[in-house]
Amino acid sequence: MANTHDRIRAIVWRDEALELLDQRLLPGKIEYRRLTDVEAVAQAIRDMVVRGAPAIGITAAYGVVLAARARYRQSLDSWSSTIQEDLKALAAARPTAVNLFWALQRMENVVAALDDAQDYDPTAPLLREAQAIHAEDIAANHRMGQLGLELLQASPGAVLTHCNTGSLATGGYGTALGVIRSGFAAGAINQVYADETRPWLQGSRLTAWELLQDDIPVTLLADGAAAYLLKHNQVQWVIVGADRITANGDVANKIGTYNLALAAHYHSVRFMVAAPSTTIDMSLPDGTHIPIEQRAAEEVLSVAGQSIAAAGATAWNPSFDVTPATLITALVTERGIVHHPTTEKMARLLTDKH
Amino acid sequence: MANTHDRIRAIVWRDEALELLDQRLLPGKIEYRRLTDVEAVAQAIRDMVVRGAPAIGITAAYGVVLAARARYRQSLDSWSSTIQEDLKALAAARPTAVNLFWALQRMENVVAALDDAQDYDPTAPLLREAQAIHAEDIAANHRMGQLGLELLQASPGAVLTHCNTGSLATGGYGTALGVIRSGFAAGAINQVYADETRPWLQGSRLTAWELLQDDIPVTLLADGAAAYLLKHNQVQWVIVGADRITANGDVANKIGTYNLALAAHYHSVRFMVAAPSTTIDMSLPDGTHIPIEQRAAEEVLSVAGQSIAAAGATAWNPSFDVTPATLITALVTERGIVHHPTTEKMARLLTDKH
Repeated sequence: MANTHDRIRAIVWRDEALELLDQRLLPGKIEYRRLTDVEAVAQAIRDMVVRGAPAIGITAAYGVVLAARARYRQSLDSWSSTIQEDLKALAAARPTAVNLFWALQRMENVVAALDDAQDYDPTAPLLREAQAIHAEDIAANHRMGQLGLELLQASPGAVLTHCNTGSLATGGYGTALGVIRSGFAAGAINQVYADETRPWLQGSRLTAWELLQDDIPVTLLADGAAAYLLKHNQVQWVIVGADRITANGDVANKIGTYNLALAAHYHSVRFMVAAPSTTIDMSLPDGTHIPIEQRAAEEVLSVAGQSIAAAGATAWNPSFDVTPATLITALVTERGIVHHPTTEKMARLLTDKH
Repeated sequence: MANTHDRIRAIVWRDEALELLDQRLLPGKIEYRRLTDVEAVAQAIRDMVVRGAPAIGITAAYGVVLAARARYRQSLDSWSSTIQEDLKALAAARPTAVNLFWALQRMENVVAALDDAQDYDPTAPLLREAQAIHAEDIAANHRMGQLGLELLQASPGAVLTHCNTGSLATGGYGTALGVIRSGFAAGAINQVYADETRPWLQGSRLTAWELLQDDIPVTLLADGAAAYLLKHNQVQWVIVGADRITANGDVANKIGTYNLALAAHYHSVRFMVAAPSTTIDMSLPDGTHIPIEQRAAEEVLSVAGQSIAAAGATAWNPSFDVTPATLITALVTERGIVHHPTTEKMARLLTDKH
């Protein structure tokens, strides 16, 4: 992994506060926001200062540290009950990515364990847990990079990705973009195409910026051009991330992913989903049960703050869609690869020892 | 047709000059550009002051009038040979829409007929021909509206369209948007969805504006959201226009159309192409022969003049794609409807008496 570039970190714990690279300002401005209380963290997740399923999980974990510190200062012996409100506020920030709830559950388990010793300052053990979640995410991404690379090496060439799934969307290295980093470093990828990913333009603003920071050339395209690209341009793999994966292997991911999966399917282009096992929600049998966030129409009616649409027009703006497992060639997790996911294979992935 | 709104005209011949509604400025500014020479007309087509296959054909026809007037003033007896250069310049303005070449051929036929009487001012007969092309286009659109409506009435509900195919893209009324006007007026359409249509945002900027001018409500969506819409939202028809249709019924249209056709096909949503028979190019056996215009990367890397992508990123920007005839439920022309187009059915459409 030494030769794969990975210079960016979007989430930094520094001097007892959380610093987030403000992704709304990229690529024009590189500016970290320093957050010192849990309300600011929930707001930052809601407003997409930070985005990407693993990244919002990690951010929320650090948010719990800030919450515990404040609650403990308020009251040595009731912090573990008053903090429940903060956990709820963080959980309510965004509905679709399950990593958020998973990370909060891990933090809540630590809170519960500390409960018996209420006079003990919870900040340090909770910070250790948040940092462990963060470090484990990066390690999982590196492992996915290796596993994904093995798939890419069977058919080297061009890849197409959607949204941003890199260091900006995770603790570091990235999920789908981590696989692309590994593939590019190993020579298994000779060209990276990226959908611009309207309405938020994560492809143009974030993925292109992140790849260029790390000296990986990238060619952007309008989302609508993807099917035509797959028909004509020797793309070997479409590689995307995930915000939630259900027990049968259905995948919620950034709006436009399902479009891509259909186009890949029609052209027999392989379709890879790279996501840590923390993205898997075994409590939901299939994708029809995933809550899909609807965001403001304004995101479609404007670009970068500039109104583009005719006054009076409305917009439909689901932030995610669901790709059925039947359209997925391979799901790459840090626990292993699931080829053509099914409920049985998904259950095996999570129960097998690693 | 009396109760279908249609207030906008993008191409107006007035006081011996051509006035074009500058579509690059919509919806923010309603500004007509007055063109008095053929070079300005070719430039306006190239720069997309005017766009839409039928509209650029009509515009080019008026351009020939301006060219003939100037050439005749220069020389009474050589205008019909010197004008050939102008015809070539107009034909070179954009490569994909065949209506441009068709309209120029009609104008050239008049030039050739006048050739024998070179001392006769060609301006008036050429203007009559251009105005005939313009009027025939509007009549064809009204006829397509009626024919398309018959299809819609079999399954009333919501429709999804792409790009702009309305009065702005034609002589008036529109092709796909003409069918939508007719459908809405007759109550066969209860909801109009429109893709925003990156990179040029014809959906957000033009279609939404045009429909709202005519009191037809519209809901925009990001292009990537179309498949998810078709999966969940009772869309009865996808309705699009065409820039060139080949002998077998393959359709070149605005980039993103092929994506939509694949999504419609997968969800068994009907897919209608509405285009005048002037869009049909029987000289090409199928869509692989259609020249596809590649436009500047800047159109993808920026929005409305504002740079959005990371500096250093490149973009792939085909302006059109090709939808194979096999994905088309019905092709609506003013000569009749072709269900599930094939080479045989297309030939029959063009040879049958009407």
